[in-house]
Amino acid sequence: MDLTLASQERCEVMDITANVQRACRQWGGSGAVLVYCPHTTGGVTLNEKFDPTVRQDLLHWMERLVPAGAVYAHAEGNADAHIKASLTGSQVLIPVRQGNLLLGRWQGLFFLEFDGPRHRTLWLSFLATAPQEAASGK
Amino acid sequence: MDLTLASQERCEVMDITANVQRACRQWGGSGAVLVYCPHTTGGVTLNEKFDPTVRQDLLHWMERLVPAGAVYAHAEGNADAHIKASLTGSQVLIPVRQGNLLLGRWQGLFFLEFDGPRHRTLWLSFLATAPQEAASGK
Amino acid sequence: MDLTLASQERCEVMDITANVQRACRQWGGSGAVLVYCPHTTGGVTLNEKFDPTVRQDLLHWMERLVPAGAVYAHAEGNADAHIKASLTGSQVLIPVRQGNLLLGRWQGLFFLEFDGPRHRTLWLSFLATAPQEAASGK
Repeated sequence: MDLTLASQERCEVMDITANVQRACRQWGGSGAVLVYCPHTTGGVTLNEKFDPTVRQDLLHWMERLVPAGAVYAHAEGNADAHIKASLTGSQVLIPVRQGNLLLGRWQGLFFLEFDGPRHRTLWLSFLATAPQEAASGK
Repeated sequence: MDLTLASQERCEVMDITANVQRACRQWGGSGAVLVYCPHTTGGVTLNEKFDPTVRQDLLHWMERLVPAGAVYAHAEGNADAHIKASLTGSQVLIPVRQGNLLLGRWQGLFFLEFDGPRHRTLWLSFLATAPQEAASGK
Repeated sequence: MDLTLASQERCEVMDITANVQRACRQWGGSGAVLVYCPHTTGGVTLNEKFDPTVRQDLLHWMERLVPAGAVYAHAEGNADAHIKASLTGSQVLIPVRQGNLLLGRWQGLFFLEFDGPRHRTLWLSFLATAPQEAASGK
């Protein structure tokens, strides 16, 4: 299942929690959902959903660790975005029970845009829980 | 299955290898275990288990990359912890065969506390191996 | 299934996309492939495959963030490699459909050597897609 997004800024944190929750409900199963970013200048991450300053700090600090204006070999002007993507990661796996995305109380799921604005697509895959799991009394 | 921890320091690396191994043995199946951190100021990581200086260097360097005392927008005094969590990641997926956690020779699994001391809970989920895998002679 | 590699440099980005694609085709199933690094001074990451300068920048910037020559407690001369491994991650999970590795258009899969030259082994595991997934109209 695909999830499409349109970022508005060069660097942006987009909340995709509700979109992924909706997809899990549609599925209705138990196991885990793999949220996979097929792009190489963006990533996905879990972090605090409630206070937007957390996302602001995250973007600001990624820029501080890997500045867009530094000297890089890659000549397309987005070398920093590629490095940021490898630091934050391209995929997240989240447990799902009977169609409910099991997030922590303060947790949200975010797409990290490091080279926007762009149209982006994320891929969702649903993985099966182990058959023996129920038997072992979990 | 839940795994509960109590950290003692603001920043700490806690070895959870034995706890996760025990849970896998109880399960007894084959596939993979998802170790999921539902908190947003801590993470999980794989690294060397034997020499404790490795964990000490990791904590020290995370502090150097994202200092607690820097200026952040988030006003709760733990903005650095949120950023550290997104850099190290909130979940790890490890192969399991017949209840044995398949770690590398020097590898251990760690919870990274970035805003303790706190009570923490990690969630373990067991995912099924692919049915065709056996048939293909693996 | 094991994938063996021999790195030639202390730090190196090795393209393992074709090796993992081959293993997925041999499997022939649907779900996801877990590419797991059992070593603690190397990692795996997804990033741009086509322009080799992207890999060069990634290595160079990891060295800038965590210099080999800094002062560390760990006395084996590879403390930086352990920290780099926790920043980039030890495993990647990629969707697979009927034996095809579903990568993004520009995406490749890479082993990151941070303490070579060494012989390395990566572990591939195939995880099952959820049985209800087909029924939900994917």
